[in-house]
Amino acid sequence: MSRYEEFMKFRERMNERILAQGTLEIKRFFALDTKAYAAGALDEKAKELLGLAASMVLRCDDCISYHLIQAKDKGASAAELFETFTVALVVGGSIVIPHLRRAVAFLEELEQAAP
Amino acid sequence: MSRYEEFMKFRERMNERILAQGTLEIKRFFALDTKAYAAGALDEKAKELLGLAASMVLRCDDCISYHLIQAKDKGASAAELFETFTVALVVGGSIVIPHLRRAVAFLEELEQAAP
Amino acid sequence: MSRYEEFMKFRERMNERILAQGTLEIKRFFALDTKAYAAGALDEKAKELLGLAASMVLRCDDCISYHLIQAKDKGASAAELFETFTVALVVGGSIVIPHLRRAVAFLEELEQAAP
Amino acid sequence: MSRYEEFMKFRERMNERILAQGTLEIKRFFALDTKAYAAGALDEKAKELLGLAASMVLRCDDCISYHLIQAKDKGASAAELFETFTVALVVGGSIVIPHLRRAVAFLEELEQAAP
Amino acid sequence: MSRYEEFMKFRERMNERILAQGTLEIKRFFALDTKAYAAGALDEKAKELLGLAASMVLRCDDCISYHLIQAKDKGASAAELFETFTVALVVGGSIVIPHLRRAVAFLEELEQAAP
Amino acid sequence: MSRYEEFMKFRERMNERILAQGTLEIKRFFALDTKAYAAGALDEKAKELLGLAASMVLRCDDCISYHLIQAKDKGASAAELFETFTVALVVGGSIVIPHLRRAVAFLEELEQAAP
Repeated sequence: MSRYEEFMKFRERMNERILAQGTLEIKRFFALDTKAYAAGALDEKAKELLGLAASMVLRCDDCISYHLIQAKDKGASAAELFETFTVALVVGGSIVIPHLRRAVAFLEELEQAAP
Repeated sequence: MSRYEEFMKFRERMNERILAQGTLEIKRFFALDTKAYAAGALDEKAKELLGLAASMVLRCDDCISYHLIQAKDKGASAAELFETFTVALVVGGSIVIPHLRRAVAFLEELEQAAP
Repeated sequence: MSRYEEFMKFRERMNERILAQGTLEIKRFFALDTKAYAAGALDEKAKELLGLAASMVLRCDDCISYHLIQAKDKGASAAELFETFTVALVVGGSIVIPHLRRAVAFLEELEQAAP
Repeated sequence: MSRYEEFMKFRERMNERILAQGTLEIKRFFALDTKAYAAGALDEKAKELLGLAASMVLRCDDCISYHLIQAKDKGASAAELFETFTVALVVGGSIVIPHLRRAVAFLEELEQAAP
Repeated sequence: MSRYEEFMKFRERMNERILAQGTLEIKRFFALDTKAYAAGALDEKAKELLGLAASMVLRCDDCISYHLIQAKDKGASAAELFETFTVALVVGGSIVIPHLRRAVAFLEELEQAAP
Repeated sequence: MSRYEEFMKFRERMNERILAQGTLEIKRFFALDTKAYAAGALDEKAKELLGLAASMVLRCDDCISYHLIQAKDKGASAAELFETFTVALVVGGSIVIPHLRRAVAFLEELEQAAP
């Protein structure tokens, strides 16, 4: 099982458990988290790139991985992803670099998993 | 003098001083900070919204003010700004709210300063 | 008008504007933010102290002020507030100190405003 | 050896080394870190939940694991833990979710390790 | 009264109040916070610059002001301060810039207050 | 292959890929990141310790590992490293402790890898 598959499986299994055991507010937060990225004045790709930039400056690898999957799924090109990385790197500084490395490694895995 | 004018004046005066006294690396960082938002695969508006979302989750009021000015200048509508706020709020949580309040207050001032 | 009154007035005016102009997701987030502190297995005071500790380590002065008002309203004693400050200080380190100073100054104002 | 046992063993071995090699100030900080959670106006369980909420919004997995162990040991119920998670999630936003997943996975391991 | 004098006065008045009302752990933390900057293998100036860089990347204006006062008092030159700013800017990214502006403005005030 | 070697290999492979695929701004940022630590008014060791303290309070394990390698290479003694850890711990609080544990474990590996 690739790291990509492991990530998705753990994510799914834990989300199920959280939604089963969690409070009503946690469930509502999860619903909100999905709706925030629905198309509106901005399209889905633009919103996923916002989520990606925000995740990168906050240095959350799982969030970055998730938004990379989504952004690619909504049609983001490699150039668009790297320009988003650029903004995040300049805003967030060199502490973003280890997350950038893992983002690029995750992109490789994504390409190998779903060519 | 409005808060908007004060902000711009302090910003400009201090940037001048930093560029006069600062190291070569600080000057290069400032140049890079400008270039990161130039049009490429993503247009300028999209990049300013990335900068806005990143500034909001990192909770930097001056950065938010600056990207609001720039995003409006590049044509961002109120709806696009509020959808960017939505992503930032969901990613960053309720601690983003005080900055959201000040962002909305700053938008008011911008509209009064440059109608 | 005291700083406490100013804070409450600005907060209220901006919340109204955000709820008027904001997206449906922002409104839902605001509703969720209220419900998260309702009594459940933990009582309201305990939850406000959780919100206070979280706000303090994230260094959000407005959030700290808000939770101080609420925690006192739900019956938190000075000793309970200072023990919450202690946990936040040890978890968050000396960068919490300026916020601790402002929290203590705000407590003074609260006592003068509502004796 | 389970992940729980590994975590505890690495923690203990490194704490010993830090206390052996570290400065007097590091030793004093470690002592303070223990005392901050002793019963006072607030009981031990309440303080561990404060530490848990603070650790969660600061997104420190090891800190979350440690406070989960302690909170359970001081009598925190599953409902109390999930209400603490709720406050942390609303305060800290969706970037807390990956840590919430790992917290819930760690709770599973704790239950299997010490039934 | 200059901003520098106001800052020092508020700081002192609140520290007194915190030490009067605070828990024993808060008092010990304050003592530790002083001792961490005492000369050892590294001299006082080097430690103040470490405190300055850490405060800058954590974006704590009061902490930056305090370490600027201390670093200058221990003999740090303008060039040493600006090289410390450079490291902090590169590590922490463009969100450090507003704090850098205020740091440079505070340095001006320091020079005017104590020429 | 030791964890140290793995870290260096992954770092190098990903840096190459980022510099090959990345934008011009990312390349410039990487160049700046190197130059910020060159000797000037402060020597290389002092700058690496600044980078180490900044990385520690921002809680970036890879950044800490990198600056530990560099600081030792520029002549930092164990006492200097632990005094830097002390400042970072007091500034950043107990959430720094898990990173301190991993820093001390990494120092062990460095000593075994290059005795």
